[in-house]
Amino acid sequence: MIFTFKYHFKYHFNLSTAHDLPKTFGDVKFVCVGGTPRRMKSFSEYIAGELGLADASVFNICGETDRYAMYKTGPVLSVSHGIGIPSISVMLHELFKLLYYAQCTDVTLIRLGTSGGIGLEPGTVVVTKQAVDGRFQPRFKQTVLGKSVVWPTELDSELAEELLKCSKELPEFNTIIANAMCTMDFYEGQARMDGSFCSFTEEEKKKYLDEAHTAGVRNIEMESSVFAAVCKRGNIRAAVVCVTLLDRLKGDQITCSLDVLHNYEKRPKSLVGRYIKKHLSV
Amino acid sequence: MIFTFKYHFKYHFNLSTAHDLPKTFGDVKFVCVGGTPRRMKSFSEYIAGELGLADASVFNICGETDRYAMYKTGPVLSVSHGIGIPSISVMLHELFKLLYYAQCTDVTLIRLGTSGGIGLEPGTVVVTKQAVDGRFQPRFKQTVLGKSVVWPTELDSELAEELLKCSKELPEFNTIIANAMCTMDFYEGQARMDGSFCSFTEEEKKKYLDEAHTAGVRNIEMESSVFAAVCKRGNIRAAVVCVTLLDRLKGDQITCSLDVLHNYEKRPKSLVGRYIKKHLSV
Repeated sequence: MIFTFKYHFKYHFNLSTAHDLPKTFGDVKFVCVGGTPRRMKSFSEYIAGELGLADASVFNICGETDRYAMYKTGPVLSVSHGIGIPSISVMLHELFKLLYYAQCTDVTLIRLGTSGGIGLEPGTVVVTKQAVDGRFQPRFKQTVLGKSVVWPTELDSELAEELLKCSKELPEFNTIIANAMCTMDFYEGQARMDGSFCSFTEEEKKKYLDEAHTAGVRNIEMESSVFAAVCKRGNIRAAVVCVTLLDRLKGDQITCSLDVLHNYEKRPKSLVGRYIKKHLSV
Repeated sequence: MIFTFKYHFKYHFNLSTAHDLPKTFGDVKFVCVGGTPRRMKSFSEYIAGELGLADASVFNICGETDRYAMYKTGPVLSVSHGIGIPSISVMLHELFKLLYYAQCTDVTLIRLGTSGGIGLEPGTVVVTKQAVDGRFQPRFKQTVLGKSVVWPTELDSELAEELLKCSKELPEFNTIIANAMCTMDFYEGQARMDGSFCSFTEEEKKKYLDEAHTAGVRNIEMESSVFAAVCKRGNIRAAVVCVTLLDRLKGDQITCSLDVLHNYEKRPKSLVGRYIKKHLSV
């Protein structure tokens, strides 16, 4: 990572080098990120219980802004990233600067999320191998100074295997390692027909999702490509762990009950929580 | 707009046709959107004052989810959209469905935001003519079923002129009509050197921003292209009104005091508030 200026990252976290960053964040070993503030607060509280830090107060470190929310429980930092590549990209830039100035070492970064599955039983947890784009290519394209720059999107294979191994202790749901498709749009971009516009037929949609399945894609979400690309670029060990809420080969909308949905949503948290606990106990 | 299924939009707004949408939303004439929940709450409260609806309670209609926040004051709906094209795109799909099922007519959509200026005095308000991409082209590219689809990004020129005319009554700040550059990334994508990575020199950056200025770009933000494209596609009158917080030809970071910054941030609100008040009084 290259920092050319004195560190300010007040923009979206409302933190800066005016804070004693090594004191507050220097012990961080895991950073877990996910879409919404509430989900990350709940994750932070869950981790507090798992690590026997139940008395730890969980408060939003970035409370002065409502762009992102950040919680810390012992060596685990939990940060929300909003929806989509640009939103998580801003957060990651500022997170990497935070970790650098806080002098953190050996940090593992894990994204926990929800996704649409392709040909999987709803509720399956997918640990991402590679993030592919809408053409099933493992790349993240960025426009810098008007030119295209392309980055690879493999995630850490050792970490993925460790998470898979850990999932064997949680037999109440299935966990697999597979490729995720990362899209810029939730509706047409994911071949959904239930947005406010739709420019294709049911047959064209089916053909595309079948092609995705043949190409090895097992779930679809909206942040993994830039997450994989910048973690690789920053040499940070990283994983994406998403539960599938529905099988997109069977429909566009979630049909399970709210109770079942909430149970599904807890699965990435259970797996990542268990992994972190084991790792920190070694 | 094409709706192929019975209306569910519980995904990100947590609303559906189970609600009486025409009763709750049928009178909406203006939808104002902006990045953060707090900013849109503040805008909704401001509009309540302007419209003499000071007793109106401003509460978050989407409070059961924290993906987006939505407030309603009389005929004005205020919705947060998060950061970046994918985030605002999900919101717009669900908003358009909401407006359709609520049987709203003659709705005007306005995005209020902050931006980086190019060659403008900080604090200038820019009403967007066209949204251009990082190569200064007025287009929004989308990947649908693995293929590129390109949409035009002009905003309503009559509405822009009406907003400019209205700005003459607010001589305490300058307002112009110009093109905005809409990027996928806040740091390298906007030629900033203060992110966690930087792959170009100060000279290359300067050259690029000078080229943007020559191409007619006067501010840079992260949502206008998809906003313009889908509003045009849905035949909805739309405008983007952003204040510039700094001049990017002079630096990457905001250097003004917090008081000055807060004053700048109020400007789009003042202009749009005044426009709505005049329009509803006719």
